[in-house]
Amino acid sequence: MSSVTEICERAAAAAPSVARLPAQTKDAGLHAMADALEASAERLVEANRRDVAAARDDGTSETILDRLTLTEKRLGSMATGLRAVAAQSDPVGEVVEGWKRPNGLLIEKVRVPLGVIAVIYEARPNVTADVAGLCLKSGNACILRGSSIALASNKEIVAVLTEAAARAGIPEYAIQLIPDADRASAVALMQAKGYVDLLVPRGGHALIKSIEEQATVPYIIDGDGNCHVYVDRSADLDMATAIVLNAKTQRPSVCNAAETLLVHEELADKWLPQCLDALASEGVTVHGDARVRQTWPAAVEATDEDWATEYLDLDIAVRAVADLDEAIAHVNRWGTSNAEAIVTQDLAAARRFASEVDSGSIFINSSTRFSDGGEFGYGAEIGISTQKLHSRGPMGLKELTTAKYVVWGDGQTRL
Amino acid sequence: MSSVTEICERAAAAAPSVARLPAQTKDAGLHAMADALEASAERLVEANRRDVAAARDDGTSETILDRLTLTEKRLGSMATGLRAVAAQSDPVGEVVEGWKRPNGLLIEKVRVPLGVIAVIYEARPNVTADVAGLCLKSGNACILRGSSIALASNKEIVAVLTEAAARAGIPEYAIQLIPDADRASAVALMQAKGYVDLLVPRGGHALIKSIEEQATVPYIIDGDGNCHVYVDRSADLDMATAIVLNAKTQRPSVCNAAETLLVHEELADKWLPQCLDALASEGVTVHGDARVRQTWPAAVEATDEDWATEYLDLDIAVRAVADLDEAIAHVNRWGTSNAEAIVTQDLAAARRFASEVDSGSIFINSSTRFSDGGEFGYGAEIGISTQKLHSRGPMGLKELTTAKYVVWGDGQTRL
Repeated sequence: MSSVTEICERAAAAAPSVARLPAQTKDAGLHAMADALEASAERLVEANRRDVAAARDDGTSETILDRLTLTEKRLGSMATGLRAVAAQSDPVGEVVEGWKRPNGLLIEKVRVPLGVIAVIYEARPNVTADVAGLCLKSGNACILRGSSIALASNKEIVAVLTEAAARAGIPEYAIQLIPDADRASAVALMQAKGYVDLLVPRGGHALIKSIEEQATVPYIIDGDGNCHVYVDRSADLDMATAIVLNAKTQRPSVCNAAETLLVHEELADKWLPQCLDALASEGVTVHGDARVRQTWPAAVEATDEDWATEYLDLDIAVRAVADLDEAIAHVNRWGTSNAEAIVTQDLAAARRFASEVDSGSIFINSSTRFSDGGEFGYGAEIGISTQKLHSRGPMGLKELTTAKYVVWGDGQTRL
Repeated sequence: MSSVTEICERAAAAAPSVARLPAQTKDAGLHAMADALEASAERLVEANRRDVAAARDDGTSETILDRLTLTEKRLGSMATGLRAVAAQSDPVGEVVEGWKRPNGLLIEKVRVPLGVIAVIYEARPNVTADVAGLCLKSGNACILRGSSIALASNKEIVAVLTEAAARAGIPEYAIQLIPDADRASAVALMQAKGYVDLLVPRGGHALIKSIEEQATVPYIIDGDGNCHVYVDRSADLDMATAIVLNAKTQRPSVCNAAETLLVHEELADKWLPQCLDALASEGVTVHGDARVRQTWPAAVEATDEDWATEYLDLDIAVRAVADLDEAIAHVNRWGTSNAEAIVTQDLAAARRFASEVDSGSIFINSSTRFSDGGEFGYGAEIGISTQKLHSRGPMGLKELTTAKYVVWGDGQTRL
């Protein structure tokens, strides 16, 4: 069994070769990996079944069990994701911009891989394939450290992926899984300074806190998703109901699900009750402010804690606001900079919400559930950045690169 | 006297107004600031004279005194820098990219300010104007924390800048200087989490170490500059001499000055001695490996410590290498990812050096001294990033922004 240090050393040694792979080799590798996932479905589902059974015996919640479970259909989606990543244009070598200086120097800003990318993640085994694919296509070596409850699944997935990649000419150690999913291996990875160029943690509060306190390598926080839907006075009301229902109930356990509904008070009586009825009939518990409870008495009382909470479950906080300003102020006060939606027919309101709400993604007349690399067209996603530095919002291939300036001269010296 | 917390609160409160300033207001502010610097030259030089006299009495080195000194000419350069920043196009609101998804969603990636930018810097008072100008143009509020030896100069510069900016309609507290240049104020700024969106430290090892150990806010390391010039076998030899002399001696105290000369061994006898003679006649001490000392016996013996050292002075380490591979390996082993140059007439060598050397800027047939925001055409620079995340190399306006996705729909929900 390899130590984290050995794995890091191998990744760093492999990184320059991965960085120089031609696009066609990378794409051949991605297609081979996709095919292998499908061809090995039985073996993978079987390994996953062991993980799920053990997790169920440990009393793991249904939400987590859902995230953990691999089916042939989900394997198909993973393969489709890898093929979609292959179909993206190669970000490496892209001349992002270039210009000539008065002294004749030609300056080119060229996209280059970061080097070694590490991802610490939780139950979902599909992340394993997504991350491996995105890192390979962006010319980076990757180190995967999944959850212990998915260890059998992840080992099998990585074995299938690396066998297929090797046959397609991808260097050894371009993709590695840390075989110990204990706390020590996570900390070792967070502190592998000089080896890891970017660490992306995908997990809950405990992981984020641990990273913030202990990491010495550069990282991007894939943080909370306290997402909002604001239904403006001018909204198309059927559209509003559809978007609220979708944002809250289509997959409540994920970070781009809505947690708070803000509604213009003019709609508190004329539309809100039917929307809350619809939510309730989907099993959603409504936590409302005084105005909401007045029009819909079944609501539980909402406190400041509700505005701050990412339920990740069939709960929603609901507040009536006097106007757009109050809605914007609420989101900027309580939001986590992930995804916020406005439903409105009013162009000025849409533009102000888009401009003044401080968040990674603003959805106008569309569901927060689209805050996702796959839905953005990135093939897959490595995470959703809730920070401002380097990258914000869903991260795709470009977010896994850095730049290098190449300056062409013919003898220029500085005066 | 304001506490760091009060200054941070004011900056965060001002940031949304600064972010929404129209380009013409920002440019009017920048021109007013430039004019005011020139109009107040006497007052500023006088304040600076007090700083310089006190620093000289404290036994400060001539190198630092040079960095500290303000002259009418340097004030003119600061004003020119502000006007050059005004002449840049406004990065805020730029749609970096945009695309339509099959479901009709229109995704726009829009450039937005980071919010509050803090800079901790050392003796050079010109940084005060550069940072204020770049932050204003990029729509950010800024907090400046200069060195205690430049405190009188900085206070006067900021007073002049903020008076002029206010007259042009720039919000109060868009530009603030921390009036205590003690250690506690630096640490307080490093830990102003939730207020400071980006901290750029411009200083030596001690500052960087302190940031790495204590900072809780996001930061970009403006680190060491152990820069290399490699003179290839095929180099134009007169050009090589000119570039080596310029890179080493034009301003040895700054981070983009060359510290190591690598020379193809075929040039060790036929060109190197005359180049080292020229360096020596400029007062440079040569630290050479065995091959170099054989051809130029006056060289001091170079050890591994020399390859690792950023002299920031009239010293240069010189090594003969067998070929391009050895040169690239040397730079990747000892470099600090700031700026490296190759002098060559060989296109393949230039392309390999550019591709395989892992550094922020690669100069082909030009001096490392061009690794500079002003020389890149950015008007001024906030620093040179030696890290890979967010930004690498000289940082201009775009590097002071982040992105927001604005997604336009007409009722899309996720399936």
